[in-house]
Amino acid sequence: MSSNNNNKHFITDPTTLVRDSLQGLIHANPHLSLDSKEKVVFIKDLATRRTNCVTLLCGGGSGHEPSHAGFVGQGMLTAAVCGHVFASPTSQVLSCLRRIYSEEKGSLVVIKNYTGDVLNFGRAVERFKSERVHQGKSMPKVAMVVVGDDVGVVNPNDDEEGGVGRRGLAGTVLAYKLAGARAANGDSLEQIKKTIEYAASHTFTIGCALNAASVPGQGMPRSLKENEIEVGMGIHNEPGFEKKALEPADKLIDSLVDHIVKSHPFTKASPSGKGNVVILINNLGAISNLEMGLVTKLAVEAAASRGLKAVRVLSGTYMTGLAMPGISLSVLVLPDNQSEQQELVALLDQPANCPGWINQAHEVVDAGNTDESAKGPTQSYTPASDPAWERVIEAAYNNVVEQEPEITRLDQLMGDGDCGQVLLSGATAIYEATKDKTLPLNDPSAALARISSIVEDAMGGTSGIIYCLFLDGLSQQLHQILKDGQEKSLTAKVWGKAMLGALGTLYQYTTARPGHRTLIDALQPFAKTLAEIGDVKAALEAADKGAKATATMKPKRGRAVYVGQNDGLADAGAIGLVSVLTGISEALQK
Amino acid sequence: MSSNNNNKHFITDPTTLVRDSLQGLIHANPHLSLDSKEKVVFIKDLATRRTNCVTLLCGGGSGHEPSHAGFVGQGMLTAAVCGHVFASPTSQVLSCLRRIYSEEKGSLVVIKNYTGDVLNFGRAVERFKSERVHQGKSMPKVAMVVVGDDVGVVNPNDDEEGGVGRRGLAGTVLAYKLAGARAANGDSLEQIKKTIEYAASHTFTIGCALNAASVPGQGMPRSLKENEIEVGMGIHNEPGFEKKALEPADKLIDSLVDHIVKSHPFTKASPSGKGNVVILINNLGAISNLEMGLVTKLAVEAAASRGLKAVRVLSGTYMTGLAMPGISLSVLVLPDNQSEQQELVALLDQPANCPGWINQAHEVVDAGNTDESAKGPTQSYTPASDPAWERVIEAAYNNVVEQEPEITRLDQLMGDGDCGQVLLSGATAIYEATKDKTLPLNDPSAALARISSIVEDAMGGTSGIIYCLFLDGLSQQLHQILKDGQEKSLTAKVWGKAMLGALGTLYQYTTARPGHRTLIDALQPFAKTLAEIGDVKAALEAADKGAKATATMKPKRGRAVYVGQNDGLADAGAIGLVSVLTGISEALQK
Repeated sequence: MSSNNNNKHFITDPTTLVRDSLQGLIHANPHLSLDSKEKVVFIKDLATRRTNCVTLLCGGGSGHEPSHAGFVGQGMLTAAVCGHVFASPTSQVLSCLRRIYSEEKGSLVVIKNYTGDVLNFGRAVERFKSERVHQGKSMPKVAMVVVGDDVGVVNPNDDEEGGVGRRGLAGTVLAYKLAGARAANGDSLEQIKKTIEYAASHTFTIGCALNAASVPGQGMPRSLKENEIEVGMGIHNEPGFEKKALEPADKLIDSLVDHIVKSHPFTKASPSGKGNVVILINNLGAISNLEMGLVTKLAVEAAASRGLKAVRVLSGTYMTGLAMPGISLSVLVLPDNQSEQQELVALLDQPANCPGWINQAHEVVDAGNTDESAKGPTQSYTPASDPAWERVIEAAYNNVVEQEPEITRLDQLMGDGDCGQVLLSGATAIYEATKDKTLPLNDPSAALARISSIVEDAMGGTSGIIYCLFLDGLSQQLHQILKDGQEKSLTAKVWGKAMLGALGTLYQYTTARPGHRTLIDALQPFAKTLAEIGDVKAALEAADKGAKATATMKPKRGRAVYVGQNDGLADAGAIGLVSVLTGISEALQK
Repeated sequence: MSSNNNNKHFITDPTTLVRDSLQGLIHANPHLSLDSKEKVVFIKDLATRRTNCVTLLCGGGSGHEPSHAGFVGQGMLTAAVCGHVFASPTSQVLSCLRRIYSEEKGSLVVIKNYTGDVLNFGRAVERFKSERVHQGKSMPKVAMVVVGDDVGVVNPNDDEEGGVGRRGLAGTVLAYKLAGARAANGDSLEQIKKTIEYAASHTFTIGCALNAASVPGQGMPRSLKENEIEVGMGIHNEPGFEKKALEPADKLIDSLVDHIVKSHPFTKASPSGKGNVVILINNLGAISNLEMGLVTKLAVEAAASRGLKAVRVLSGTYMTGLAMPGISLSVLVLPDNQSEQQELVALLDQPANCPGWINQAHEVVDAGNTDESAKGPTQSYTPASDPAWERVIEAAYNNVVEQEPEITRLDQLMGDGDCGQVLLSGATAIYEATKDKTLPLNDPSAALARISSIVEDAMGGTSGIIYCLFLDGLSQQLHQILKDGQEKSLTAKVWGKAMLGALGTLYQYTTARPGHRTLIDALQPFAKTLAEIGDVKAALEAADKGAKATATMKPKRGRAVYVGQNDGLADAGAIGLVSVLTGISEALQK
């Protein structure tokens, strides 16, 4: 049990991993094509795209999936060039540019701010230009925009001449989306460039990880301590600016949002520090979606408490550092100008068809469904007394009280020991409801439904639900019988028939059957005998015989399965049911 | 560095984690509403849904996100009931059923086969029926389907009376999708039930994990060994049926597909073992998307090699076990009957709007874009000799040969030591191309573009790209100047002006500027002086002065940044450039 557990991977050959992985992407995404040699993924319907739209090319090192190839598709990017894991692509970029260049509308290269990417993609752009003019063609309309959204590198001069600028992190995906929507709308290269430049200068991202990510074929570059986290970590395992002890998530997320709003680039873009924003919560690779939901809630709240209203919240896996256990938060500051703001939000909302983007539906009718509709009827029955019923219930209760020690003993030997107490809880609750005169005893069907509810609250657990299901089934059977007028009176045979029907309901939800060493071994013979010969005493004898027979059965259901083999002891649940039936039978025969 | 690294989580309070997480889901999904008390997520536009469609309710324990709430949305499910982590919901189910029940079309409950889920959801269904009839309403149209797709529990009797049946795993999501599409189309409860029952009996899933998942607030229940994997692991950390040493992914995935096709339930559903299938590759939580792509490719190939053609491939995160590092493979055997098969596939293809489902675009025009379009012009220039150019190139080469030891020495002290050799490689390649008469020396612009390509191949690395970008920029400048007829002849001043323009190109892609201790400190003064006074000797002197001045500069770019402070040594790159310029200058002055 060492941290090397993190170094296990599903890999065959690290040198072909990226290419193989892209092949898998293509299998799952019929709208994509792959130039396997160049590791270029492009939209299959390229001809239409090139004719009508500015084509958009992105890319970078691999290991950040779904970035970047997962964002290629209608409404987003045209192509992605994929390098080796965490390494910039080189000559492949030119190959991609040649393939996707739109003679009519031009092409835009959108990349993250890393020296290697900027130089390699830039080199391709310039070489493409040279190549074209020396072929006697006009100078191509190709531009490149570099996105840097990181505020984890704390250098106040980063935006100034003299700094390498902010790194590109998950916020880059917002730039992809805005550009993609514009391109799909037929907008010009200049319009798209302007929007993407706005996004690049108004998006601020900070990452936080619980550990570094293991690189296939290389392993863990370093490992944080047991209770340590790192803030400002990059997507290639670059160290962050701070290591600290893991805090509760509310405190941690608040500190991340605080870091963003206090950063120099943020305060420059949003002097008031308030207004409408888009928040993107990104899974760096290995955080459970359950925790992602919590982080999303906390990020929205931490922003709101600072006067930043999230008009759009994106939560998901957008740009990973392989399987890094961490998250990043991005804030896009929207323009103050209302129409500009609406335009930008509309571009984000516009549907895109690619595996990495989660489309949101905002044009939703809110039916205003209230929680009232989820509440049950306040009281659907009128309490009524009935001496015969009351005698039966009291007798059943008394018998359970008497038998409880034996049931408990059996369950302690072959189960988890609570069977007797659970049954007694149920019997007690019903008996007390009877004493309190709260049951509608003039209506057997309604009374049984009410008893089922009481049993659910009082018993809990699997045996409780088994009783409930049977009682509700029985209630429904009686209701049907009385409503249809099938039977004039509830004779013993009619009760038996209804019980067989209720067993059918129960069998829909449990695979326990006679012979499996459960209470069914007593219940089924009781119902069957009652339905056939209409004699309660004979039915009870059949139930008792069935319960005793469980002593020689191999457990097939219930807790006893895990305890092991039978030692000649009867099933506690079956004996428990017999104790109930014995009380009922005795009362009816008085 | 212990395995406890896996136990870190983004959590505040484990007891409110599920509720908080659902709140985050709602923030990111405006089409959803949350009954926070009951942990029920439902489609906001419930009124329309209840009027026109069978409503679909799913749910189960939490920790499997996006299952189940992430599949609530137009075209898929109506509501999801969420229990605690890995624990079935209880009375909340009835509350949800009351809320979403469609009087017109009825409701269907779809759940995974686990005893707790079956009993708790079943109990809600039966109680809802009882409640309704005792309110004097008609018996509601409510049905429940239980999906069990696991073939990891190797009990040949599991499908027979006497077994608890197969567990519900990621294949359940296919049942959700098929049911959701049918419901959206207005199909009847019976039609939906029939389709879902087909899916349940024809879907086969096997999981494989590199480790168990840590449970927030509880930690790791157990941990696999350093090189161990487990096959057949459940989504709640249930142990699998086999532990073995980690194999290469191709062998492993093949063995998983083999296990599926040899399982009793599969051979029963597909006696021929061949035909069209849908394959779903599921991330159990913490496998990188890069590896997911590989697994997808391998699963499709392993199926194909057995005569199972994947007509649809779904790859993503559908049903997790928190952040379990593992995957599961599901195979849905399609009906042999063509029209039935097409109908089922069309239901899968039908768009759904929920965060967990990845819509695929199948109606894609394949423009048949060939890899030819990505290839460059075979030869866009005609080689031509020019004695003056040849002298210049030879002189530059000779001077680099002479200076290489000094450049290497400087770079060894302040860089990574390869600067001299890299420069020599570039110079040698250009010199050899000149000797071989392959350059178009009668066209300076074309010649520089060609030289740039040679430099790219020969030098590589950052300095190579810097040279390339400058050379391509220079080529483009000259092309423009000559094309426009701006200048009659390429005087020294014109060359200087073109070089300044090329510097502008370079500056688009690097933030290095004069004063940053790079070759720019020599290049910029050379170009500026040449453009201003048109004298090569003066320009060289300016370059030399600039290069020497780097000896007192603090490194701001390049490898030297990481090495540390300056020790009075000039930058190797700048000195290297001066060696090139010296050769050029000498040849021109002869």
